[in-house]
Amino acid sequence: MNASEFRRRGKEMVDYMADYLEGIEGRQVFPDVCPGYLRSLIPTTAPQEPETFEAIIEDVEKIIMPGVTHWHSPYFFAYFPTASSYPAMLADMLCGAIGCIGFSWAASPACTELETVMMDWLGKMLQLPEAFLAGEAGEGGGVIQGTASEATLVALLAARTKVTRHLQAASPELTQAAIMEKLVAYASDQVVATLGTTSCCSFDNLLEVGPICHEEGLWLHVDAAYAGSAFICPEFRHLLNGVEFADSFNFNPHKWLLVNFDCSAMWVKKRTDLTGAFRLDPVYLRHSHQDSGLITDYRHWQLPLGRRFRSLKMWFVFRMYGVKGLQAYIRKHVQLAHAFEALVRQDARFEICAEVTLGLVCFRLKGSNKLNEALLESINSAKKIHLVPCSLRDRFVLRFAICSRTVELAHVQLAWEHIREMAAAVLRAQGEEKAEIKN
Amino acid sequence: MNASEFRRRGKEMVDYMADYLEGIEGRQVFPDVCPGYLRSLIPTTAPQEPETFEAIIEDVEKIIMPGVTHWHSPYFFAYFPTASSYPAMLADMLCGAIGCIGFSWAASPACTELETVMMDWLGKMLQLPEAFLAGEAGEGGGVIQGTASEATLVALLAARTKVTRHLQAASPELTQAAIMEKLVAYASDQVVATLGTTSCCSFDNLLEVGPICHEEGLWLHVDAAYAGSAFICPEFRHLLNGVEFADSFNFNPHKWLLVNFDCSAMWVKKRTDLTGAFRLDPVYLRHSHQDSGLITDYRHWQLPLGRRFRSLKMWFVFRMYGVKGLQAYIRKHVQLAHAFEALVRQDARFEICAEVTLGLVCFRLKGSNKLNEALLESINSAKKIHLVPCSLRDRFVLRFAICSRTVELAHVQLAWEHIREMAAAVLRAQGEEKAEIKN
Repeated sequence: MNASEFRRRGKEMVDYMADYLEGIEGRQVFPDVCPGYLRSLIPTTAPQEPETFEAIIEDVEKIIMPGVTHWHSPYFFAYFPTASSYPAMLADMLCGAIGCIGFSWAASPACTELETVMMDWLGKMLQLPEAFLAGEAGEGGGVIQGTASEATLVALLAARTKVTRHLQAASPELTQAAIMEKLVAYASDQVVATLGTTSCCSFDNLLEVGPICHEEGLWLHVDAAYAGSAFICPEFRHLLNGVEFADSFNFNPHKWLLVNFDCSAMWVKKRTDLTGAFRLDPVYLRHSHQDSGLITDYRHWQLPLGRRFRSLKMWFVFRMYGVKGLQAYIRKHVQLAHAFEALVRQDARFEICAEVTLGLVCFRLKGSNKLNEALLESINSAKKIHLVPCSLRDRFVLRFAICSRTVELAHVQLAWEHIREMAAAVLRAQGEEKAEIKN
Repeated sequence: MNASEFRRRGKEMVDYMADYLEGIEGRQVFPDVCPGYLRSLIPTTAPQEPETFEAIIEDVEKIIMPGVTHWHSPYFFAYFPTASSYPAMLADMLCGAIGCIGFSWAASPACTELETVMMDWLGKMLQLPEAFLAGEAGEGGGVIQGTASEATLVALLAARTKVTRHLQAASPELTQAAIMEKLVAYASDQVVATLGTTSCCSFDNLLEVGPICHEEGLWLHVDAAYAGSAFICPEFRHLLNGVEFADSFNFNPHKWLLVNFDCSAMWVKKRTDLTGAFRLDPVYLRHSHQDSGLITDYRHWQLPLGRRFRSLKMWFVFRMYGVKGLQAYIRKHVQLAHAFEALVRQDARFEICAEVTLGLVCFRLKGSNKLNEALLESINSAKKIHLVPCSLRDRFVLRFAICSRTVELAHVQLAWEHIREMAAAVLRAQGEEKAEIKN
C-alpha cells in the first residue's frame, strides 16, 4: 500500500470510525458469541499472497464486530469508563505517522518536551502542589505511564530502591535480601492509598494517612485512577487534599478525561527517586545533552524502554475541549449518576450501597446475594445494557457506572426502567419458588 | 467535535499523514532544537476555552515538527528500526474507534480471540515448535506485550514464582525471602539469552544453552526483539534453532515486521506458568465463562490490567502484505546491509567490526576510539544522516542499521559517500594535529 492508496483507504476508515460511533446505539452492547467463535471464521495460517483492503474491511463487520463489547455504547455501564474522543483519535493518528520512539530526549525532543509540559498543564488543572511540577528547574515532574498498574509498580520499586540504599548506607553489613525480607508495603483494603476505588469509588483519608507516612519516612503513593479526572473541578478538588504528603501520585486521563487509552498520568516530587532506580545507559542510547541537567530521558522513569508520542493526545484534547469543556463533561457524568441514584431511591425494593460521589452508583435489591446475582444475570443475559458487580462487605452489589461520552439522561432512564422490569421478574420467580417450597 | 466534524478533520489528518511520510526525505533527519525549546513556544497552562482544530494543526508544523527526530526518514540509520506501515496505521485507527479494553474475554471477545489466533499465525510463520501455539486446546500460546522489557520481566517473575513454589513445596520451612536470596538469573554479556543483540546483532547459541537449562531445570527465556522478524524467512530460520528448549520466547514485530509500536510478541509453553504468577480475580472482573477452560483472560498474562486491541494491526499487516511480502521486505533490508558492508570493505581506512547477519553493520575507522568518536560527532552534527554508536570489547564502534520502510540502495550509497567525506575531514584534522605536535 502506497501513500496514494492510504489517502483513499484512510478516508474510508475515517468514515467507518464515524459511522461506528454514530451508530453505536443501534448495536447490541454485549455480543452473542461463544468462546472460540473467531477461530472457526478465519484461516489457520496467514496468507502467502497479499489480500485487498476491501476483503479485510468486509471481515471487520463479519468477524470482528459480532465479538465486540461496545464500551462506547450509551448502554454500557460496566467497569469504569475508558476515554474516547475525536480529538484524541486525531492525535493518535498523527502519533502513528510520526512513529518515533521517545526513550531519550535525543530520540525525539518534541516527544519528551511536550510530555513534560502537558504533565505540568494537567498538574495545574488539578492544582497539584508545585513540588510535583517540572517547571523550568523543578525537582519533580510528570510522566505518562501505560496504566495505573505500571505507575504503582514503578512507585513500589522506586520506594524499595530508596529505602534499601538508605538502610545499606547506615548499615553496610546488611544484604539486599535481608532488607527485602523486612520491607512492608502498607495498603488499605482496596490497595495502596486510593482515591476512588474500583468497587465502590470510596476514598482513603490522605489527611490522616499522609502525616503518619511523613513522620515515619514511608513512601506514600496515591492512586486516583478513575477519580483523578474529577479533581479538575473546584467542587471535587477537596477529595485530593493531603496529596501534599505524597511522594508520588497517579490517575488515568484514559479513563475519564477524554484521552484515549493508554495515558496514565504519574507525578513524583523527586525525579531522582525514579531515575535512581531505573537508570539505563548503554552506549547506543547516550547523547550529547544527557548529562547537561537540562533534559529528561523518560526511559529512566518507567519499566519499558520504548514509548509512543502520547502527549499529543493530551495536547489535542486539552486544547479542543478547553478546561471548561472538560469540567462540563465531568459534571454531566456526575449529574447522571445522581439522577440514577434518585431513581433507585424512589423504589423501596432497592437500596443504595455506597455514597455516590462521582459517576458510580452501587445498588442492590434488598434481599439475598442470590437474588441480586439472579438480577445481574438476567440483566446481562438480556444484553440491552451491560453492568458488572462488586462485593462490598460480603454483599453482592450491582455497579452502575456512567461511561459513554454520549450517554444522556434518556439512556439512564431507559436503563432504569429495564432494570426494574428485570427485578420484577426475578422477584416474581423468587416468590413462586417460595410458594412452591411452602406447598 | 462531533462525528461530522471528525469526518472532515480526520480526512485532513489522513492527508497530513500521507504528506508527512511522502515528504519525509526532504526533512532534516535530526532536529536543530536545543533542550527546553518547546516550553517557550506554548502557554504555561491549558486554555480555558476550546480552540479550533486549525490552530492546533498549524502548531504541529510550528512547534512539534522542528523537534522531531524523523525515525522513518530513509536517512535514519540509528538504533534499530521501529515499524511503520499504512495497513498498521489503518488498523490502529480502527482500534482507536472501537476503544475496548480487553483485560478479560468478556470485556471484548473479539479482542482476545483475534490475538490468540494472530499469535498462532505468527508462530507458524516462524515455525515455532507446536508447544508454543494455543491451537484449539494447547497448553501454550502467545500474547502481545507492550515491549520486550515487559516480556522479559514477565518471564522473570513467572520463573521466580514457579521455582519459589517448587522449593516451598519440597521444604515448607523456607521463607520466600530465604529462597529469593539464593535465586540466580543467568545472562550472557548482552542480557538473557538473546538472538540479535542491540549492540552488534550477535546470537547466543541456544543449542548449547538450551540442553543445560533443560537438564538443570532452569527457566530459559529467549529474547529476539529485533532479529525475530527475520525468522519468517527460511534462510534465517536456523538462527532460531534451539528455541525448542525455551520456556518463553519473544520478539518485536513493532521493530521489523511492519506492525507499528507497540506490539511485542511473546509465547510460552505452559500458559499456567503465567496465569499462576499474575492471576487477579476481583468480583468486578469475573464473567460466566472464566472457569470454563475455554477462554483466555489476558490480564493474567501481563503486568498491566488494561490492553488495547493490538492484534488488529497484525491482522491488517499480515493480510495486506502476505507472508511473501513480509519476507521480501526483510530480504531487502538484509541486502541493503550487505551492500553497505561491501562499500565499507572497499575502503581500506575502515574495518567491519562484527559479522553482518541481518540489517545491522558495525564499522569503524581503523584507529583510536577518539578518532571514531570524532567521526560520529561530525556525522551527527551535519544531520544529513543519523547514526548511534556502540561499544564492542572497549572499542567505540559506529552502527549502521537499515531502518526505514522506504530506504533504497541510493540512500545507502549517498550515506556512505557522506560518511567518507566526514572521515576524510576527521583524518585530515588528526593529521594536522599530529603534525603540530611534531613541530
